[in-house]
Amino acid sequence: MNDIVRADGRTTDELRPVTIERGWSDQAEGSALISFGRTRVLCTASFTNGVPRWMAGKGAGWVTAEYSMLPRSTNDRMARESVKGRIGGRTHEISRLVGRSLRAVVDMKALGENTIVLDCDVLQADGGTRTAAITGAYVALADALEWGREKKFLGQKAQPLIDSVAAISVGIVGGVPMLDLAYTEDSKAETDMNVVVTGRGLFVEVQGTAEGAPFDRSELNSLLDLALAGTVTLTEFQKNALGR
Amino acid sequence: MNDIVRADGRTTDELRPVTIERGWSDQAEGSALISFGRTRVLCTASFTNGVPRWMAGKGAGWVTAEYSMLPRSTNDRMARESVKGRIGGRTHEISRLVGRSLRAVVDMKALGENTIVLDCDVLQADGGTRTAAITGAYVALADALEWGREKKFLGQKAQPLIDSVAAISVGIVGGVPMLDLAYTEDSKAETDMNVVVTGRGLFVEVQGTAEGAPFDRSELNSLLDLALAGTVTLTEFQKNALGR
Amino acid sequence: MNDIVRADGRTTDELRPVTIERGWSDQAEGSALISFGRTRVLCTASFTNGVPRWMAGKGAGWVTAEYSMLPRSTNDRMARESVKGRIGGRTHEISRLVGRSLRAVVDMKALGENTIVLDCDVLQADGGTRTAAITGAYVALADALEWGREKKFLGQKAQPLIDSVAAISVGIVGGVPMLDLAYTEDSKAETDMNVVVTGRGLFVEVQGTAEGAPFDRSELNSLLDLALAGTVTLTEFQKNALGR
Amino acid sequence: MNDIVRADGRTTDELRPVTIERGWSDQAEGSALISFGRTRVLCTASFTNGVPRWMAGKGAGWVTAEYSMLPRSTNDRMARESVKGRIGGRTHEISRLVGRSLRAVVDMKALGENTIVLDCDVLQADGGTRTAAITGAYVALADALEWGREKKFLGQKAQPLIDSVAAISVGIVGGVPMLDLAYTEDSKAETDMNVVVTGRGLFVEVQGTAEGAPFDRSELNSLLDLALAGTVTLTEFQKNALGR
Amino acid sequence: MNDIVRADGRTTDELRPVTIERGWSDQAEGSALISFGRTRVLCTASFTNGVPRWMAGKGAGWVTAEYSMLPRSTNDRMARESVKGRIGGRTHEISRLVGRSLRAVVDMKALGENTIVLDCDVLQADGGTRTAAITGAYVALADALEWGREKKFLGQKAQPLIDSVAAISVGIVGGVPMLDLAYTEDSKAETDMNVVVTGRGLFVEVQGTAEGAPFDRSELNSLLDLALAGTVTLTEFQKNALGR
Amino acid sequence: MNDIVRADGRTTDELRPVTIERGWSDQAEGSALISFGRTRVLCTASFTNGVPRWMAGKGAGWVTAEYSMLPRSTNDRMARESVKGRIGGRTHEISRLVGRSLRAVVDMKALGENTIVLDCDVLQADGGTRTAAITGAYVALADALEWGREKKFLGQKAQPLIDSVAAISVGIVGGVPMLDLAYTEDSKAETDMNVVVTGRGLFVEVQGTAEGAPFDRSELNSLLDLALAGTVTLTEFQKNALGR
Repeated sequence: MNDIVRADGRTTDELRPVTIERGWSDQAEGSALISFGRTRVLCTASFTNGVPRWMAGKGAGWVTAEYSMLPRSTNDRMARESVKGRIGGRTHEISRLVGRSLRAVVDMKALGENTIVLDCDVLQADGGTRTAAITGAYVALADALEWGREKKFLGQKAQPLIDSVAAISVGIVGGVPMLDLAYTEDSKAETDMNVVVTGRGLFVEVQGTAEGAPFDRSELNSLLDLALAGTVTLTEFQKNALGR
Repeated sequence: MNDIVRADGRTTDELRPVTIERGWSDQAEGSALISFGRTRVLCTASFTNGVPRWMAGKGAGWVTAEYSMLPRSTNDRMARESVKGRIGGRTHEISRLVGRSLRAVVDMKALGENTIVLDCDVLQADGGTRTAAITGAYVALADALEWGREKKFLGQKAQPLIDSVAAISVGIVGGVPMLDLAYTEDSKAETDMNVVVTGRGLFVEVQGTAEGAPFDRSELNSLLDLALAGTVTLTEFQKNALGR
Repeated sequence: MNDIVRADGRTTDELRPVTIERGWSDQAEGSALISFGRTRVLCTASFTNGVPRWMAGKGAGWVTAEYSMLPRSTNDRMARESVKGRIGGRTHEISRLVGRSLRAVVDMKALGENTIVLDCDVLQADGGTRTAAITGAYVALADALEWGREKKFLGQKAQPLIDSVAAISVGIVGGVPMLDLAYTEDSKAETDMNVVVTGRGLFVEVQGTAEGAPFDRSELNSLLDLALAGTVTLTEFQKNALGR
Repeated sequence: MNDIVRADGRTTDELRPVTIERGWSDQAEGSALISFGRTRVLCTASFTNGVPRWMAGKGAGWVTAEYSMLPRSTNDRMARESVKGRIGGRTHEISRLVGRSLRAVVDMKALGENTIVLDCDVLQADGGTRTAAITGAYVALADALEWGREKKFLGQKAQPLIDSVAAISVGIVGGVPMLDLAYTEDSKAETDMNVVVTGRGLFVEVQGTAEGAPFDRSELNSLLDLALAGTVTLTEFQKNALGR
Repeated sequence: MNDIVRADGRTTDELRPVTIERGWSDQAEGSALISFGRTRVLCTASFTNGVPRWMAGKGAGWVTAEYSMLPRSTNDRMARESVKGRIGGRTHEISRLVGRSLRAVVDMKALGENTIVLDCDVLQADGGTRTAAITGAYVALADALEWGREKKFLGQKAQPLIDSVAAISVGIVGGVPMLDLAYTEDSKAETDMNVVVTGRGLFVEVQGTAEGAPFDRSELNSLLDLALAGTVTLTEFQKNALGR
Repeated sequence: MNDIVRADGRTTDELRPVTIERGWSDQAEGSALISFGRTRVLCTASFTNGVPRWMAGKGAGWVTAEYSMLPRSTNDRMARESVKGRIGGRTHEISRLVGRSLRAVVDMKALGENTIVLDCDVLQADGGTRTAAITGAYVALADALEWGREKKFLGQKAQPLIDSVAAISVGIVGGVPMLDLAYTEDSKAETDMNVVVTGRGLFVEVQGTAEGAPFDRSELNSLLDLALAGTVTLTEFQKNALGR
């Protein structure tokens, strides 16, 4: 299967070039500018000592995320959600996905009463923005936690990170399961799936959608195989970026 | 595994009592009041001849959905989204899921330039509201299409319904995979998955989320087994309700 | 006058069939699904110990109401107010009317620092939704107060309910005063009036509007006669529903 | 009864001083600055040739109204509704009342496909703002229609005004029915009623509300007597202002 | 230059007739109805003891402003911002300008923990509304501070007003610099500038915009000359209005 | 004066290091990532053939701009305006300023019925974001016009760009006039001024604000001298970036 060559020359199980520019921001406690091919997402992690009022006094922290696209990150300019006065369903959905994915690898008790907000702003979009966002946000999060430790908001022995997390899209295009869909592939996929996996290889999220035709169990299995292999590679990129 | 008995006496692979009151509404072209145990959702299908302006002239129809909860459908009263002036992320997400799920079984060309809006209003909530909404919306949709045929908005030979669709939640609670989670089960589940399946047994959506602990591939497989069996039963209930 | 027969066979001073399904909701402290003919309104009463901050410390309670229509409760589907992002004038107006009507029969000092929110959601609309809402909300309110007494949030001797309250629409259609207008009557009425009356026969609200032609004092008097007689009957239905 | 003297020296059936400054605005087609005592409302009528799209082609016109209060028209400053981003229930309710009241005296066919928007902005509030708004808006409306005739948007023989209209508040304060309540009276009234009456003495709206204690039929009749007498006087003021 | 006569007969360095009706409102702590020709703005100052929560405990006060136009203050009716549900950019910009301008002449420490809100509502617009608003708001502010002193919210020796402030528009119309532009002049100006000046002749704001053609330094100087002379006159009007 | 050395070692008339990365975006018709020191703004120009409906048929084009800050572009994270559901006054004000500034150098007739939207998104903020936005937007605009020419949406001889435009901030800090304020300088400036100047040295906007103390004419002149010199340098940077 893997000798099929895609429009950009990749094999079906090949990731696009991935770069992670750690510490891109001078302002945020943690940050990463991540690219999956032409997709570029700026991820920042804002560390605040303290938690929202409804959580106070429980000795636990909070991690949340917001995802957004710049109006001209896409091929056609989109209206800003701030101008429309409301956040669209897709934005809401992805923000919630990113937040859940990162929370899955944080021990909230070990975090203590601290809050981390992950902002994932898509500077340029070419498919896979949500998976790049999750993968980059993990790097920003790790640095923000290190900052919190240096500032003594975290105990020296606290281990809030219980695993790493990365995400990748897979899909069936023209009947063929493929890894890391670019926009032109994604837009004609019969089935599209986003898979979030921890560094230890466990699933955090599996979101498969039949955009064109429903899929059977064997197709589902092929997609999961591709995704698990892809996230192993992304985990390596994260380790390298973090110098571990 | 199936001899484990749950709080409400069910085995792990057992659905709650399901009822479908077809034609509940005197106003809508199709409707169903569906219950999964104490969860009760009123589904209506509104058939309009014509499509939104951006779709006109393409000879194809449109199906969309809106999901909402009554403020006191839940144990604690929730503020109305109309009063807050904005729709929350969860509502957006579920509305989109219901719409995608129903579109997966409609041939838009065969529908012609007609629009169907599915409204799923949760009158009482006890877990599984989105899956009940999808399952009930299918019955309302089928009746609305029949109405359109009678009114000659659809050709006599047009077959817009290419399959049926139903949905069920599954999850891992206390380490045990279970079918059709009630609210108390759902709120303590380690993993929660909603699965949308056609009458022919193909997947339309697989949405699994690790709320507590990430899950491995064998757990994923157990959940899919439960969901596929559950949707076979729901498909039977739909057929009975529709008198087919 | 009363031998004029209406489209649905009623005499001019006859109510449509009224049913009150008390305790419809498993979640709310009080509830009633009320129908006036094809008009069906789900009324729930949510009892909360405590009052909004601006009322705290005065030893008095608060009763408020929200009215809403499901999008396909009507013959043509209406856009949801949550989707439009704002509540319309009619909704605001009726919510305020329902709240005032119920407050008129509650002794706020006897209620103590407790809050009751009445939600009236129109599941199906065929005229008279606001009057059905008030009449049903009274039943839900009575049960919620009983719940508060059982839970000891109210003193055993506290009598917050100082009277009962019911409401009915009347109008002049084709020059003839009529009781309890169905939608087709209401839409062609010259004058339309909603009257809220206590169990003792006192007025809480009189809202008469000349939709077509202004009305004179004698017409006003005929309408009030009809309304007072109609609310006597509704008061009986309420007593029966509450088993008193 | 009428020898009871009120805080401001009036008898119970006496209006506050009424002034109508016709043509206050240099911009609007019709305008009036009306005062009922310290209550001052600027009413403008904007005449537009043409109607909203949903009314076009029916040969009929449209009259609508918007009511608003300046933030410091009241004793305590209120937040602006534009700043809050939403219109409150009371504002909605009064805007609708003013619109209905004026439409009751306009023959929409005679108006032809023209639109009149009445803006009633409360510059200073001391009770009775909605009744002053209706009474002043009539004067602005009459002038705007005259303007339309001069500009030939109305036929020379068209008679869109079929009657005049005025409004007044009445209420029961300390058990005594009174005319034209000032704010301090209104805020302690047991019952408050707004009555809209045409120049010929017919009712357009009767809106009575028991704020404190429900009222009986004889009290209702006393209030209506006061209101009918009061609106006769207001009709005279309108005629004088219009020089008729 | 000054023998050029404008449409309304003024010379290029001449203000329109200015009137300041101090104490127009019975409700506000300070108020002025100011007119620059046909432009009329109602300015009220609301004095509140205490400051917003985020300022509390610092011993300093706060002055803020809101600007708005009545819908028919202009030649064509504008939609209300409350109805649109959002405040436009121009309104925001002017509200901020008015607030900054008045804060420039208040010693916040001397004001103590008190808040003053200036509301500037344009009743009729004919150019220069923002400059009339600033000039009138100063008079309202001065009276509100006097009120605060009488009520002992300010110490007897506190001098919160460190200067007076007034504003005027200037512009280049048909190549000629002119003072105090009326709407017809403003709409065809190549350059439009608003200048805010204290009683001592110092600049608080200089906002020049090339609407048509960019301007050079000598034109800028001519405009500043006109503005400084104009604000000297306005300062006199303010003194007279305040009886100083 | 110029031997005073600032916190970052600059003289009072020295710009921070300026970089312009032209063509940063693969999606937009024109783009530039501009930095003034640590301030980084991504400017994109979106070219659309056609104009908004209200401008059609006049043979003229339209240029508009939107400015926004990423939530963590600043030292403390700011809430997103999309999440708040409304655009703040500052954002509105700057978007309008950027749009006006660019329109000042475009001949709308020569542009023909084409629309250009300039999006200026602040990725990192350290003072001077609005002036960097204007300066970078000019580069993006020039490239988008060239794109339009290549695509034949513009005539081969059309010259829509009549000049270049750049902007810089100046201010008085500790009594000393300075060029190009960094955030720490800006936040303690007595007077802050933004000046927009064309390549030919003419003013498009002069916006001076006394944040701390009002300023006199001689200070104003010093600030204008600095700004004019600074924009000469920025114009050179723009030419270099554009390879002219």
